[in-house]
Formats: sequence, C-alpha cells, structure tokens
Amino acid sequence: MTRAKLSQRAAQLKPFHVMAILARAKQLEAQGRSIIHLEVGEPDFTTAPSIIHAGMQALRHARTHYTAATGLTELRHALAAYYQRKFGVYIDVGRIIITPGASGALQLALLSLLDSGESVLLTDPGYPCNRNIAQILACRVIAVPVTGETDYQLDADHIEQYWQDSTRAAMVASPSNPTGTIIQAASLQALNTAVENKDGHLIVDEIYQGLVYASEDTTALTLTENCFVINSFSKYFGMTGWRLGWMVVPEDYVDVIDRISQNLFLAPSTLAQYAALEALKPETETVFEQRRDVFRQRRDYLLPALESLGFGITAKPQGAFYIYACCDSLTDDSFQWTQDLLEAQGVAVTPGVDFGYFDAHRYCRFAYTRPVEELESACKRIRNFLNSYY
Amino acid sequence: MTRAKLSQRAAQLKPFHVMAILARAKQLEAQGRSIIHLEVGEPDFTTAPSIIHAGMQALRHARTHYTAATGLTELRHALAAYYQRKFGVYIDVGRIIITPGASGALQLALLSLLDSGESVLLTDPGYPCNRNIAQILACRVIAVPVTGETDYQLDADHIEQYWQDSTRAAMVASPSNPTGTIIQAASLQALNTAVENKDGHLIVDEIYQGLVYASEDTTALTLTENCFVINSFSKYFGMTGWRLGWMVVPEDYVDVIDRISQNLFLAPSTLAQYAALEALKPETETVFEQRRDVFRQRRDYLLPALESLGFGITAKPQGAFYIYACCDSLTDDSFQWTQDLLEAQGVAVTPGVDFGYFDAHRYCRFAYTRPVEELESACKRIRNFLNSYY
Repeated sequence: MTRAKLSQRAAQLKPFHVMAILARAKQLEAQGRSIIHLEVGEPDFTTAPSIIHAGMQALRHARTHYTAATGLTELRHALAAYYQRKFGVYIDVGRIIITPGASGALQLALLSLLDSGESVLLTDPGYPCNRNIAQILACRVIAVPVTGETDYQLDADHIEQYWQDSTRAAMVASPSNPTGTIIQAASLQALNTAVENKDGHLIVDEIYQGLVYASEDTTALTLTENCFVINSFSKYFGMTGWRLGWMVVPEDYVDVIDRISQNLFLAPSTLAQYAALEALKPETETVFEQRRDVFRQRRDYLLPALESLGFGITAKPQGAFYIYACCDSLTDDSFQWTQDLLEAQGVAVTPGVDFGYFDAHRYCRFAYTRPVEELESACKRIRNFLNSYY
Repeated sequence: MTRAKLSQRAAQLKPFHVMAILARAKQLEAQGRSIIHLEVGEPDFTTAPSIIHAGMQALRHARTHYTAATGLTELRHALAAYYQRKFGVYIDVGRIIITPGASGALQLALLSLLDSGESVLLTDPGYPCNRNIAQILACRVIAVPVTGETDYQLDADHIEQYWQDSTRAAMVASPSNPTGTIIQAASLQALNTAVENKDGHLIVDEIYQGLVYASEDTTALTLTENCFVINSFSKYFGMTGWRLGWMVVPEDYVDVIDRISQNLFLAPSTLAQYAALEALKPETETVFEQRRDVFRQRRDYLLPALESLGFGITAKPQGAFYIYACCDSLTDDSFQWTQDLLEAQGVAVTPGVDFGYFDAHRYCRFAYTRPVEELESACKRIRNFLNSYY
C-alpha cells in the first residue's frame, strides 16, 4: 500500500465550515433537539408540479439517450425566447450553452479563458465554490476585498488596482451570494469597459436572477455580447437536484466550449432538459412569482429583525435569499459565535469565514430559505442567546 | 469588442472526427439517404422500463432537492451490496463516491492525484475524452502506444519504460474503448504492483463492466484497495442520458474527493440516483442480461464478417460494443476511407484517428449498437464499396 499523496491543489481545498455546522445540527436533531436551518443555500420549495409532470412525460416517452453536448435545440431556443420576453434582448441561439448546473458552466468559462497559472479576479466575500473551482482547475485567484460601499461588488477601480499581467477575467455575481446585493447597470457597464480595456472578459453569475425584490431585474446581456453570463435552473426555477444550468458566451467561444463540454460532460441530463422546457413556459411563471413574493416577505421580516438584534447590514440585500450580517457588536469571532448559537439555541447559520478572508470573522450569513414563522422563532432564540451570552 | 483569446488548453482540444462523420451522416439522412450508424458509442436500447418507473416514482415523491456530494447513502450501500453479490468482494461504503457520469469520476480522480504539469500514462489507442480531460485539467498525458500483443492494454513493462518523475498515475480501461479488449487478472496484478512500486496509483475504467462476452467478468477491486475504479450507469445499466456514474477510491482519498465534488458538482442528479437504486436490484438484472446476449450475438456476427471482408482484428474484442479493425489491406488512410464509405454506401464508422496517434490511420472502430439485420446490411454495403473502390 502506497502512502496517499494528494495533489496540492486538492489538499489546499478547505472543507466548508458550514458542513461542520450542518453535521452538528443533524446530530442535535437526532438527539431530539429542535433546529432552525438558516445555513442552507437551497430553497425549501420542491420543484413546481407542472415541471415534475413534464419530467414524468419525458420518462413516459423514454427520453433517456444523450443529447448534444450543448443541449437540446428546443431548450436553447426556449432560453432565447425567455431573454427576449423578460429583458427585451435578442440572444443568438448558438451562443446559449446548456450545462450540468452553473458549476459546470463556470468550469467551461474558466477552462476556455485561463491557462494554468493565469488569474481571475473574484470578490471577497463571495461564493466559495467559485474560488475553489478556479483553484482546482490550476487557475490563480485574486481575491478583491469588497465592502458595502460598492455593494460588495467589483467596480472599475478594482480592475485598475488588482488586474495583473496574468489576469484574463473578472467575475461578479448579481444578485450575490452571500450578500444578496445587486450590481447597478451603470456600474456594470463601467466594470465591463474596464475589463475590456485590459483585453479580458467579464464573467457574470446571474444564478439568482428572478429572485430580486427591491429593484428592476436585469441581465448583463443587455449591455454587452462580450461577457460570459452564467445561469441556472436551480434557484428561481426551483430545480436544484436536477443539476441544470446554462451559459451565454461570446460568439468566438462557442466552438471551443462545445468541445470542452463534449469531453468533460458528454451532455447535460436529458430528463432535466425536457423538464426545463416546461419551466420556461410563460404560464409556469406564476408559481415562481408567488415564490418570489414569499422570499420577499421573508426578507422584509428578517432584515429589520436582524438589525434590531444588533446586526449591522450596510448594503441592503435586494435579491437571492441571503443576508450577510455584521455581528461585530456581538462577537469578535463569528465562527465561534455560530457554533455557540447552534449549541445553545439550535439556530444554524453560516460563518463569514466560508465566504473569504476579508473581515470574515465579523460576519455571518442568514439564508431565508425557511418560512417566516421559523424566522420569527429564530430571532427569538437569537435574542435569548444574546441575553445569556453577554 | 476584444479579440477572442482562447486558453491554450482549450485551443489545443481537437474536435472529434466522428462529429464530422455524424454531421455529414445526418445531412445525408436529411436528403433521404439510408444511413447505418456504427459510429455511435451509445446503446440503441432505451432505459429499462422498471428504472423509468422508479424515476417516475421519485418524481411523484418530489425528490428534487440536492443530495450529499458523494451521493445518496442508500445508493452507496446498494453498490457495496452489488460488488458483494457479483464479485464476492467487500467494499467499504465510505469508499464509494457517486458522480455525475464516469467523466465526473475521472475529473475527481485526476484532480485529487495530479497537480498542474504532472503526468498520467494512458493507452494509445484509447478513449479520447480521457486524454482530453487530463489535458484540459492541466495534466500532461504520456500516451503509451499499445498493440494487440498486449490486448491493447498497459502492462508492467510499459510502466518501467514510460513512467517519469512527474508521473502520478496510470489508467487502463477493461473492457476497453475502442478495442473491446480485457485486461487479464494476472496482468492487472503485475501492472498494479509496478505502479505501486513507482509510488503511483492505478485508475481502472470499468464502465463497460457487465458487457463481457468471452471471459469471466471481474473488477480490479478484488486485487487491490489502492486503485481508483471508475464505473457508470450508462452502458450495462442503459442509463446514458441520466448522467450518473460512481467511483471506488482508496480510503485516504475519500475526504478530499468529497471536497472536490462539493465544489465542482455540488451533487449528482437526485432523480438519476433514485432511479439507479432500481437498476441495482437483482430482479432488474434480467433485462441487462438479455441485452448483453443481444450484444454478444451482434459481436458474434460482426467479428467474423469483418474479417471475411479483409479487416484485421488481432486482439479479439471480448467486451463493450466495439471492434477496432485494421483496414490497412484496404486503405492507407482510414479517415479518408470512412468518409468515402459514408458517401458511397451510407455506413458511418469512426476513424482510428479519434483514438490516438499510434497507427491510427490503419484502423477504424465499428460500434455494434445496432441490430444484427443492420449489421448485415452494413457488411453488404461495405462489400459493395470495396468492390467498387479498388
């Protein structure tokens, strides 16, 4: 038996702290404790009935063979029609690539843009898988510390300050995980121009598109044909476990991304693609809009409730289902604090350290993926905790 | 608009020649021509009815949320039971990782073993996606020319000859694509010992396991706990479009592969996993065994038929659904020959060049994924073609 020699890129992948929180939460539940789960980034809703029905129809018709690597032609057309209908923007069907989830899309974007050792700019805080996917694919990550002042988003100044010779791309997410903040159109335009001036590409993660509560929903595709726009059927469309996403890419990248996808994935799930056709029908939207209203109500409850508990929320979350809350008036170690909160009161939240390094110990993330009544209970428990903690 | 700057690793990915053959075949079909498809590596069967039914049940129960990154516990247990039942080998459930297809499994194996610039030994000829996945992940591929003398497999001598300081792993496939050959247990044992002596790991692709016609079916897991064994629900289980596979990994790699999977994939398709539970039930096996008999009959027809047409088949294919046939008594340019055959007689096969460089122009691959009657027609057409060609 040889000794395990892990690759460095694998060994450097740190486990998510939320996994420890989640494991402990499940342990406590098994002991009979009541746990409120605000740590999980997955909507509590199951997939809409009409989509499930479409999946069953696809099975009845034995849609079990591979599709093309870039996906079903009908689905790509349906997405083009979706962009036209929702955002009034024409997208050439050839530029729409169906992927196995948004993670698959990000892999394709990075692999088509960056060679080993080349770098991508990401926000800190940001969705940790993005950073980790880049690193495991042998790319370098330049983490840009961002604050509420820029809505936790990159701006043109960041590009000037952080772009290096090795940099090929910058990535933003709007709405963002963990902050729920949006990048404004003017800011995105300036950011894209700054990136183009560096001869690079902007990657825009729009997987929470549709889950926007306080401003107009939009897409970067209205501004430029030169960016990579990543999206997913998981969040707004409520199809997490189906593992399906898509990406709109600059025309010059279509062929190479098709080839990478043929090799890495062969094709996205056939069944998920047939079900997704139903998700894109205008009549299915009613369900999604009802659910968006539910998320909005949860946000509208949780945001002031957390503020009144003493959390600081500098840039108001306008989308997704997260609040990134500063807890430095409550603790100087948010990871310890989340562990203590779980043990004492059975409320599970995600410590800031899972989203980066910059000021991470001052923050934690609340996911409002549970009903308002549970959010209310959670806030009561947090109040109890704070009263006993200090 | 910036000019497209593709990464080198993406730009170097060559399109598969079979895609051009396939595209042309479809074009000819659209013109009303009759085409016999022996180029496609996908069984003609749809998924077995009981598995489809299980998929519908899972939908009825709204199994639409994420599972753990390593997959459903029940499915991992069912696979452990499967190994016990079929091969009499005990596999710790913790070592079984469910993946989005065998491609996903190979990504995980390579990323956990190889850093950028490190190398893996692969056979030439071999399945081209393996080579391409390694290259796109910034690994170096050492292609080892193999012949019918070693059943187109690596052996211990190859390890001595080709292993470099940068090498971390060697990969074999049994049954193999494109050759359908098997690696014998004694040879595999010697190969594994040679790799262990180099402090490396063996990766064994067993995705055609079960589709073995002329010798006893086996798994490398009976020989060692130190190799990575990749498998899939696509071929024997007939679930291609569901995109589900698995991998058994050495114990020391479980945690790191879990972490890579969390980041790269989040989780495999939930629905596919529930359906796969049905595929592993002993009573479902009847369907697979009937289909295996059909494949065997096709092979038993096609192998001597091709030989009588003048193709040379040095190492008899014993599994999968491929025959890798030497056509150098017929042509000195197999790619041109496959194109001419398609144009003249409407028979689509894959040129050797898709599987490597070594002697590739002397070979083409026949996939017996069509009924015997079609194989008979194909052979008649090939005879007509040869009569008119020379």
